[in-house]
Amino acid sequence: MTDVLGATTRRREATRQKLLDAAAQLFAEEGLDAASVEAICERAGFTRGAFYSNFETKDELFLELCGRVARARVAAVRGRVAALEGDAQFPPLTADPLAIVRQILEVTADDRLGILLMSEIRINALRNPQLGAAYLAQDAELSEGVTQIVTDVAQAAGLKFRIPPAEAARLMLTVWESEATRGVMSGAEDAELSRRTSEGLARVAQLIIEPPLA
Amino acid sequence: MTDVLGATTRRREATRQKLLDAAAQLFAEEGLDAASVEAICERAGFTRGAFYSNFETKDELFLELCGRVARARVAAVRGRVAALEGDAQFPPLTADPLAIVRQILEVTADDRLGILLMSEIRINALRNPQLGAAYLAQDAELSEGVTQIVTDVAQAAGLKFRIPPAEAARLMLTVWESEATRGVMSGAEDAELSRRTSEGLARVAQLIIEPPLA
Repeated sequence: MTDVLGATTRRREATRQKLLDAAAQLFAEEGLDAASVEAICERAGFTRGAFYSNFETKDELFLELCGRVARARVAAVRGRVAALEGDAQFPPLTADPLAIVRQILEVTADDRLGILLMSEIRINALRNPQLGAAYLAQDAELSEGVTQIVTDVAQAAGLKFRIPPAEAARLMLTVWESEATRGVMSGAEDAELSRRTSEGLARVAQLIIEPPLA
Repeated sequence: MTDVLGATTRRREATRQKLLDAAAQLFAEEGLDAASVEAICERAGFTRGAFYSNFETKDELFLELCGRVARARVAAVRGRVAALEGDAQFPPLTADPLAIVRQILEVTADDRLGILLMSEIRINALRNPQLGAAYLAQDAELSEGVTQIVTDVAQAAGLKFRIPPAEAARLMLTVWESEATRGVMSGAEDAELSRRTSEGLARVAQLIIEPPLA
Protein backbone atom coordinates (compact mmCIF):
# COMPACT_ATOMS: atom_id res chain seq x y z
CA MET A 1 0.00 0.00 0.00
CA THR A 2 2.71 2.49 1.00
CA ASP A 3 4.64 1.19 -2.05
CA VAL A 4 1.73 2.03 -4.31
CA LEU A 5 1.36 5.43 -2.67
CA GLY A 6 5.12 5.90 -2.97
CA ALA A 7 5.01 5.06 -6.67
CA THR A 8 2.04 7.40 -7.18
CA THR A 9 3.83 10.20 -5.35
CA ARG A 10 6.97 9.70 -7.45
CA ARG A 11 4.92 9.66 -10.67
CA ARG A 12 3.11 12.79 -9.58
CA GLU A 13 6.40 14.53 -8.77
CA ALA A 14 7.85 13.51 -12.16
CA THR A 15 4.81 15.04 -13.93
CA ARG A 16 5.19 18.23 -11.90
CA GLN A 17 8.87 18.50 -12.81
CA LYS A 18 8.17 17.93 -16.53
CA LEU A 19 5.54 20.68 -16.47
CA LEU A 20 7.99 23.04 -14.72
CA ASP A 21 10.76 22.24 -17.24
CA ALA A 22 8.45 22.82 -20.22
CA ALA A 23 7.17 26.07 -18.71
CA ALA A 24 10.73 27.29 -18.04
CA GLN A 25 11.59 26.84 -21.73
CA LEU A 26 8.43 28.55 -22.96
CA PHE A 27 8.63 31.47 -20.51
CA ALA A 28 12.27 32.03 -21.53
CA GLU A 29 11.48 31.79 -25.26
CA GLU A 30 8.16 33.66 -25.44
CA GLY A 31 7.49 35.24 -22.08
CA LEU A 32 4.90 34.53 -19.39
CA ASP A 33 1.94 36.08 -21.22
CA ALA A 34 2.62 34.47 -24.59
CA ALA A 35 3.14 30.97 -23.13
CA SER A 36 -0.33 29.42 -22.74
CA VAL A 37 -1.23 26.55 -20.40
CA GLU A 38 -2.05 24.57 -23.56
CA ALA A 39 1.42 25.19 -24.98
CA ILE A 40 3.06 24.18 -21.67
CA CYS A 41 1.04 20.94 -21.56
CA GLU A 42 1.80 20.20 -25.21
CA ARG A 43 5.54 20.64 -24.73
CA ALA A 44 5.50 18.54 -21.55
CA GLY A 45 3.33 15.89 -23.21
CA PHE A 46 0.45 16.10 -20.71
CA THR A 47 -3.23 17.10 -20.70
CA ARG A 48 -4.65 20.28 -19.16
CA GLY A 49 -6.04 17.95 -16.49
CA ALA A 50 -2.49 17.02 -15.47
CA PHE A 51 -1.61 20.72 -15.30
CA TYR A 52 -4.53 21.72 -13.11
CA SER A 53 -4.09 18.76 -10.79
CA ASN A 54 -0.62 20.18 -10.07
CA PHE A 55 -1.09 23.96 -10.27
CA GLU A 56 -4.11 26.19 -9.73
CA THR A 57 -2.88 28.86 -12.15
CA LYS A 58 -0.02 29.66 -14.54
CA ASP A 59 1.17 32.29 -12.03
CA GLU A 60 1.40 29.63 -9.30
CA LEU A 61 3.63 27.53 -11.56
CA PHE A 62 5.65 30.64 -12.45
CA LEU A 63 6.27 31.41 -8.76
CA GLU A 64 7.38 27.86 -8.05
CA LEU A 65 9.73 28.15 -11.00
CA CYS A 66 11.25 31.34 -9.57
CA GLY A 67 11.97 29.54 -6.31
CA ARG A 68 13.43 26.53 -8.10
CA VAL A 69 15.82 28.71 -10.12
CA ALA A 70 17.07 30.51 -6.99
CA ARG A 71 17.51 27.27 -4.98
CA ALA A 72 19.29 25.53 -7.86
CA ARG A 73 21.79 28.40 -8.11
CA VAL A 74 22.62 28.32 -4.40
CA ALA A 75 22.85 24.50 -4.40
CA ALA A 76 25.28 24.51 -7.33
CA VAL A 77 27.69 26.94 -5.66
CA ARG A 78 27.34 25.28 -2.24
CA GLY A 79 28.07 21.86 -3.77
CA ARG A 80 31.20 23.23 -5.38
CA VAL A 81 32.36 24.78 -2.11
CA ALA A 82 31.75 21.49 -0.25
CA ALA A 83 33.79 19.64 -2.87
CA LEU A 84 36.61 22.16 -2.54
CA GLU A 85 36.61 21.97 1.26
CA GLY A 86 37.00 18.21 0.98
CA ASP A 87 39.97 18.80 -1.28
CA ALA A 88 43.41 18.67 0.39
CA GLN A 89 44.54 21.41 -2.01
CA PHE A 90 41.95 23.87 -0.66
CA PRO A 91 42.45 26.57 0.32
CA PRO A 92 45.54 27.11 -1.86
CA LEU A 93 48.47 28.09 0.35
CA THR A 94 48.78 31.36 -1.57
CA ALA A 95 45.15 32.18 -0.72
CA ASP A 96 44.94 34.23 -3.91
CA PRO A 97 41.35 35.58 -3.91
CA LEU A 98 41.02 35.32 -7.69
CA ALA A 99 42.24 31.73 -7.73
CA ILE A 100 39.71 30.81 -5.04
CA VAL A 101 36.81 32.55 -6.81
CA ARG A 102 37.74 30.86 -10.09
CA GLN A 103 37.95 27.45 -8.39
CA ILE A 104 34.48 27.92 -6.93
CA LEU A 105 32.89 29.24 -10.12
CA GLU A 106 34.64 26.77 -12.41
CA VAL A 107 31.63 24.47 -12.57
CA THR A 108 28.73 26.86 -12.00
CA ALA A 109 27.90 27.13 -15.69
CA ASP A 110 25.46 29.83 -16.79
CA ASP A 111 23.15 29.10 -19.67
CA ARG A 112 21.24 31.34 -22.06
CA LEU A 113 17.87 29.85 -21.14
CA GLY A 114 18.46 30.43 -17.43
CA ILE A 115 19.37 34.09 -18.01
CA LEU A 116 16.31 34.61 -20.21
CA LEU A 117 14.09 33.02 -17.57
CA MET A 118 15.52 35.20 -14.79
CA SER A 119 14.99 38.29 -16.93
CA GLU A 120 11.40 37.25 -17.70
CA ILE A 121 10.82 36.63 -14.00
CA ARG A 122 12.14 40.13 -13.22
CA ILE A 123 9.94 42.04 -15.67
CA ASN A 124 6.84 40.20 -14.44
CA ALA A 125 7.82 40.82 -10.82
CA LEU A 126 8.10 44.53 -11.70
CA ARG A 127 4.61 44.59 -13.23
CA ASN A 128 2.75 42.43 -10.72
CA PRO A 129 2.98 43.35 -6.98
CA GLN A 130 2.25 39.77 -5.84
CA LEU A 131 4.98 38.36 -8.09
CA GLY A 132 7.20 41.23 -6.92
CA ALA A 133 6.78 40.31 -3.25
CA ALA A 134 7.47 36.63 -4.03
CA TYR A 135 10.52 37.57 -6.12
CA LEU A 136 11.95 39.71 -3.30
CA ALA A 137 11.40 36.90 -0.77
CA GLN A 138 13.29 34.46 -3.00
CA ASP A 139 15.90 37.09 -3.76
CA ALA A 140 16.47 37.48 0.00
CA GLU A 141 16.72 33.68 0.37
CA LEU A 142 19.29 33.59 -2.44
CA SER A 143 21.28 36.40 -0.83
CA GLU A 144 21.29 34.60 2.53
CA GLY A 145 22.51 31.42 0.87
CA VAL A 146 25.33 33.21 -0.92
CA THR A 147 26.18 35.20 2.24
CA GLN A 148 26.64 31.90 4.09
CA ILE A 149 28.81 30.53 1.29
CA VAL A 150 30.91 33.70 1.18
CA THR A 151 31.36 33.53 4.95
CA ASP A 152 32.37 29.84 4.84
CA VAL A 153 34.86 30.38 2.02
CA ALA A 154 36.40 33.42 3.72
CA GLN A 155 36.82 31.41 6.93
CA ALA A 156 38.24 28.35 5.14
CA ALA A 157 40.68 30.49 3.16
CA GLY A 158 41.44 32.92 5.98
CA LEU A 159 40.24 35.94 4.01
CA LYS A 160 39.02 39.25 5.47
CA PHE A 161 36.42 41.51 3.79
CA ARG A 162 36.26 45.29 3.59
CA ILE A 163 32.44 45.12 3.78
CA PRO A 164 29.89 42.94 5.64
CA PRO A 165 29.46 39.44 4.08
CA ALA A 166 25.83 40.22 3.22
CA GLU A 167 26.89 43.26 1.19
CA ALA A 168 29.66 41.24 -0.44
CA ALA A 169 27.16 38.53 -1.43
CA ARG A 170 24.69 41.08 -2.83
CA LEU A 171 27.42 42.75 -4.86
CA MET A 172 28.63 39.42 -6.28
CA LEU A 173 25.07 38.37 -7.23
CA THR A 174 24.49 41.72 -8.91
CA VAL A 175 27.73 41.61 -10.91
CA TRP A 176 27.17 37.96 -11.80
CA GLU A 177 23.76 38.72 -13.29
CA SER A 178 24.98 41.82 -15.13
CA GLU A 179 27.93 40.01 -16.74
CA ALA A 180 25.82 36.99 -17.66
CA THR A 181 23.10 39.18 -19.20
CA ARG A 182 25.49 41.15 -21.38
CA GLY A 183 27.24 37.92 -22.27
CA VAL A 184 24.01 36.37 -23.57
CA MET A 185 23.21 39.53 -25.54
CA SER A 186 26.58 39.36 -27.25
CA GLY A 187 25.79 35.77 -28.29
CA ALA A 188 28.47 34.19 -26.09
CA GLU A 189 28.46 30.40 -25.77
CA ASP A 190 27.90 28.91 -22.29
CA ALA A 191 31.64 28.34 -21.72
CA GLU A 192 32.36 31.98 -22.63
CA LEU A 193 29.48 33.08 -20.38
CA SER A 194 31.01 31.28 -17.40
CA ARG A 195 34.42 32.77 -18.18
CA ARG A 196 33.00 36.31 -18.24
CA THR A 197 30.99 35.94 -15.06
CA SER A 198 33.91 34.45 -13.15
CA GLU A 199 36.19 37.26 -14.41
CA GLY A 200 33.65 39.81 -13.26
CA LEU A 201 33.30 38.15 -9.86
CA ALA A 202 37.07 37.86 -9.50
CA ARG A 203 37.31 41.65 -10.00
CA VAL A 204 34.71 42.18 -7.27
CA ALA A 205 36.56 39.73 -5.01
CA GLN A 206 39.77 41.75 -5.46
CA LEU A 207 37.84 44.84 -4.42
CA ILE A 208 36.14 43.45 -1.32
CA ILE A 209 38.90 41.18 0.02
CA GLU A 210 41.62 42.73 2.14
CA PRO A 211 44.93 41.93 0.44
CA PRO A 212 46.86 39.23 2.39
CA LEU A 213 49.61 40.78 4.54
CA ALA A 214 52.97 40.31 2.82
CA MET B 1 10.63 79.30 -47.14
CA THR B 2 13.24 78.18 -44.63
CA ASP B 3 10.85 79.40 -41.92
CA VAL B 4 8.13 77.14 -43.25
CA LEU B 5 10.57 74.27 -43.42
CA GLY B 6 11.73 75.06 -39.89
CA ALA B 7 8.17 75.02 -38.61
CA THR B 8 7.50 71.75 -40.42
CA THR B 9 10.64 70.24 -38.98
CA ARG B 10 9.69 71.33 -35.46
CA ARG B 11 6.15 69.99 -35.89
CA ARG B 12 7.55 66.73 -37.21
CA GLU B 13 9.95 66.47 -34.26
CA ALA B 14 7.13 67.16 -31.79
CA THR B 15 5.07 64.34 -33.36
CA ARG B 16 8.05 62.01 -33.15
CA GLN B 17 8.59 62.84 -29.47
CA LYS B 18 4.90 62.30 -28.64
CA LEU B 19 4.99 58.89 -30.35
CA LEU B 20 8.16 57.96 -28.41
CA ASP B 21 6.61 59.08 -25.10
CA ALA B 22 3.41 57.11 -25.73
CA ALA B 23 5.40 54.03 -26.76
CA ALA B 24 7.60 54.27 -23.65
CA GLN B 25 4.51 54.17 -21.44
CA LEU B 26 2.93 51.25 -23.29
CA PHE B 27 6.14 49.19 -23.50
CA ALA B 28 6.66 49.68 -19.76
CA GLU B 29 3.05 48.80 -18.91
CA GLU B 30 2.38 45.93 -21.33
CA GLY B 31 5.64 45.00 -23.00
CA LEU B 32 6.90 45.37 -26.56
CA ASP B 33 4.81 42.54 -28.06
CA ALA B 34 1.54 43.52 -26.39
CA ALA B 35 1.83 47.21 -27.33
CA SER B 36 0.48 47.52 -30.90
CA VAL B 37 1.25 50.37 -33.30
CA GLU B 38 -2.48 51.18 -33.14
CA ALA B 39 -2.34 51.49 -29.34
CA ILE B 40 0.77 53.70 -29.53
CA CYS B 41 -0.91 56.01 -32.09
CA GLU B 42 -4.11 56.13 -30.05
CA ARG B 43 -2.27 57.11 -26.86
CA ALA B 44 -0.20 59.72 -28.72
CA GLY B 45 -3.29 61.03 -30.54
CA PHE B 46 -2.00 60.41 -34.06
CA THR B 47 -2.89 58.25 -37.07
CA ARG B 48 -0.97 55.19 -38.24
CA GLY B 49 0.13 57.41 -41.12
CA ALA B 50 1.91 59.73 -38.67
CA PHE B 51 3.61 56.69 -37.13
CA TYR B 52 4.87 55.23 -40.40
CA SER B 53 6.06 58.60 -41.68
CA ASN B 54 8.36 58.65 -38.61
CA PHE B 55 9.30 54.99 -38.06
CA GLU B 56 9.48 52.05 -40.44
CA THR B 57 8.69 49.50 -37.74
CA LYS B 58 7.83 49.23 -34.03
CA ASP B 59 11.32 47.78 -33.45
CA GLU B 60 12.91 50.89 -35.02
CA LEU B 61 10.97 53.07 -32.57
CA PHE B 62 11.92 50.72 -29.73
CA LEU B 63 15.63 51.03 -30.57
CA GLU B 64 15.43 54.82 -30.71
CA LEU B 65 13.73 54.71 -27.33
CA CYS B 66 16.58 52.61 -25.87
CA GLY B 67 19.08 55.21 -27.02
CA ARG B 68 16.98 58.07 -25.68
CA VAL B 69 16.75 56.46 -22.23
CA ALA B 70 20.52 55.93 -22.05
CA ARG B 71 21.34 59.47 -23.25
CA ALA B 72 18.82 61.04 -20.87
CA ARG B 73 20.41 59.22 -17.92
CA VAL B 74 23.92 60.39 -18.77
CA ALA B 75 22.72 63.95 -19.43
CA ALA B 76 20.96 64.12 -16.05
CA VAL B 77 24.08 63.10 -14.10
CA ARG B 78 26.38 65.26 -16.23
CA GLY B 79 24.14 68.28 -15.70
CA ARG B 80 24.26 67.74 -11.96
CA VAL B 81 28.06 67.46 -12.00
CA ALA B 82 28.35 70.66 -14.06
CA ALA B 83 26.10 72.46 -11.58
CA LEU B 84 28.22 71.21 -8.67
CA GLU B 85 31.49 72.23 -10.33
CA GLY B 86 30.11 75.75 -10.73
CA ASP B 87 29.35 75.72 -7.01
CA ALA B 88 31.95 77.40 -4.76
CA GLN B 89 31.20 74.73 -2.12
CA PHE B 90 32.33 71.92 -4.45
CA PRO B 91 34.27 69.84 -3.81
CA PRO B 92 33.57 69.91 -0.07
CA LEU B 93 36.81 70.50 1.80
CA THR B 94 36.31 67.21 3.63
CA ALA B 95 36.10 65.39 0.28
CA ASP B 96 33.94 62.73 1.92
CA PRO B 97 33.19 60.24 -0.91
CA LEU B 98 29.66 59.53 0.34
CA ALA B 99 28.84 63.21 0.64
CA ILE B 100 30.02 63.79 -2.93
CA VAL B 101 28.07 60.83 -4.34
CA ARG B 102 24.93 61.95 -2.51
CA GLN B 103 25.32 65.53 -3.80
CA ILE B 104 25.60 64.24 -7.38
CA LEU B 105 22.71 61.79 -7.13
CA GLU B 106 20.44 64.11 -5.17
CA VAL B 107 18.51 65.16 -8.27
CA THR B 108 18.85 62.11 -10.51
CA ALA B 109 15.42 60.75 -9.65
CA ASP B 110 14.55 57.22 -10.71
CA ASP B 111 10.98 56.45 -11.65
CA ARG B 112 8.99 53.24 -11.81
CA LEU B 113 8.17 53.67 -15.50
CA GLY B 114 11.83 54.14 -16.42
CA ILE B 115 12.86 50.97 -14.55
CA LEU B 116 10.06 48.97 -16.20
CA LEU B 117 11.10 50.26 -19.61
CA MET B 118 14.77 49.35 -19.05
CA SER B 119 13.73 45.87 -17.93
CA GLU B 120 11.49 45.46 -20.99
CA ILE B 121 14.33 46.63 -23.21
CA ARG B 122 16.65 44.06 -21.61
CA ILE B 123 14.40 41.03 -22.07
CA ASN B 124 13.81 41.93 -25.71
CA ALA B 125 17.53 42.50 -26.27
CA LEU B 126 18.11 39.01 -24.82
CA ARG B 127 15.59 37.42 -27.21
CA ASN B 128 16.45 39.32 -30.38
CA PRO B 129 20.11 39.38 -31.57
CA GLN B 130 19.65 42.68 -33.48
CA LEU B 131 18.13 44.39 -30.45
CA GLY B 132 20.89 42.78 -28.35
CA ALA B 133 23.63 44.29 -30.49
CA ALA B 134 21.94 47.70 -30.37
CA TYR B 135 21.45 47.42 -26.59
CA LEU B 136 25.14 46.60 -26.06
CA ALA B 137 26.21 49.53 -28.23
CA GLN B 138 24.06 51.90 -26.19
CA ASP B 139 25.18 50.21 -22.97
CA ALA B 140 28.80 50.89 -23.99
CA GLU B 141 27.92 54.53 -24.77
CA LEU B 142 26.29 54.85 -21.35
CA SER B 143 29.35 53.33 -19.64
CA GLU B 144 31.68 55.72 -21.45
CA GLY B 145 29.56 58.67 -20.41
CA VAL B 146 29.55 57.60 -16.77
CA THR B 147 33.28 56.80 -16.92
CA GLN B 148 33.95 60.37 -18.05
CA ILE B 149 31.75 61.73 -15.27
CA VAL B 150 33.44 59.53 -12.65
CA THR B 151 36.84 60.68 -13.90
CA ASP B 152 35.85 64.36 -13.80
CA VAL B 153 34.39 64.09 -10.30
CA ALA B 154 37.43 62.22 -8.98
CA GLN B 155 39.70 64.90 -10.43
CA ALA B 156 37.59 67.78 -9.13
CA ALA B 157 37.39 66.23 -5.66
CA GLY B 158 40.96 64.91 -5.65
CA LEU B 159 39.84 61.28 -5.16
CA LYS B 160 41.82 58.15 -6.10
CA PHE B 161 40.21 54.85 -7.18
CA ARG B 162 41.25 51.29 -6.36
CA ILE B 163 40.10 50.20 -9.84
CA PRO B 164 40.13 51.74 -13.36
CA PRO B 165 37.44 54.43 -13.85
CA ALA B 166 35.70 52.30 -16.51
CA GLU B 167 35.31 49.42 -14.02
CA ALA B 168 34.13 51.85 -11.37
CA ALA B 169 31.51 53.27 -13.75
CA ARG B 170 30.31 49.78 -14.75
CA LEU B 171 30.01 48.74 -11.12
CA MET B 172 28.04 51.86 -10.21
CA LEU B 173 25.67 51.41 -13.16
CA THR B 174 25.11 47.77 -12.22
CA VAL B 175 24.43 48.53 -8.56
CA TRP B 176 22.22 51.48 -9.49
CA GLU B 177 20.02 49.29 -11.66
CA SER B 178 19.86 46.46 -9.13
CA GLU B 179 18.83 48.76 -6.25
CA ALA B 180 16.29 50.60 -8.39
CA THR B 181 14.77 47.33 -9.65
CA ARG B 182 14.30 45.86 -6.18
CA GLY B 183 13.03 49.21 -4.98
CA VAL B 184 10.28 49.24 -7.62
CA MET B 185 9.34 45.63 -6.79
CA SER B 186 8.92 46.56 -3.15
CA GLY B 187 6.52 49.34 -4.21
CA ALA B 188 8.81 52.21 -3.14
CA GLU B 189 7.81 55.73 -4.15
CA ASP B 190 10.17 57.67 -6.45
CA ALA B 191 11.76 59.59 -3.54
CA GLU B 192 12.42 56.32 -1.69
CA LEU B 193 13.82 54.82 -4.92
CA SER B 194 16.32 57.66 -5.26
CA ARG B 195 17.30 57.29 -1.60
CA ARG B 196 17.97 53.55 -2.02
CA THR B 197 19.97 53.91 -5.21
CA SER B 198 22.11 56.69 -3.77
CA GLU B 199 22.72 54.63 -0.60
CA GLY B 200 23.76 51.67 -2.76
CA LEU B 201 26.05 53.83 -4.87
CA ALA B 202 27.54 55.46 -1.78
CA ARG B 203 28.47 51.96 -0.51
CA VAL B 204 30.18 51.20 -3.83
CA ALA B 205 31.95 54.56 -3.70
CA GLN B 206 33.32 53.71 -0.25
CA LEU B 207 34.62 50.46 -1.69
CA ILE B 208 36.31 51.84 -4.81
CA ILE B 209 37.64 55.15 -3.48
CA GLU B 210 40.95 55.15 -1.64
CA PRO B 211 40.32 56.66 1.81
CA PRO B 212 41.79 60.20 2.04
CA LEU B 213 45.12 60.27 3.87
CA ALA B 214 44.59 61.44 7.44
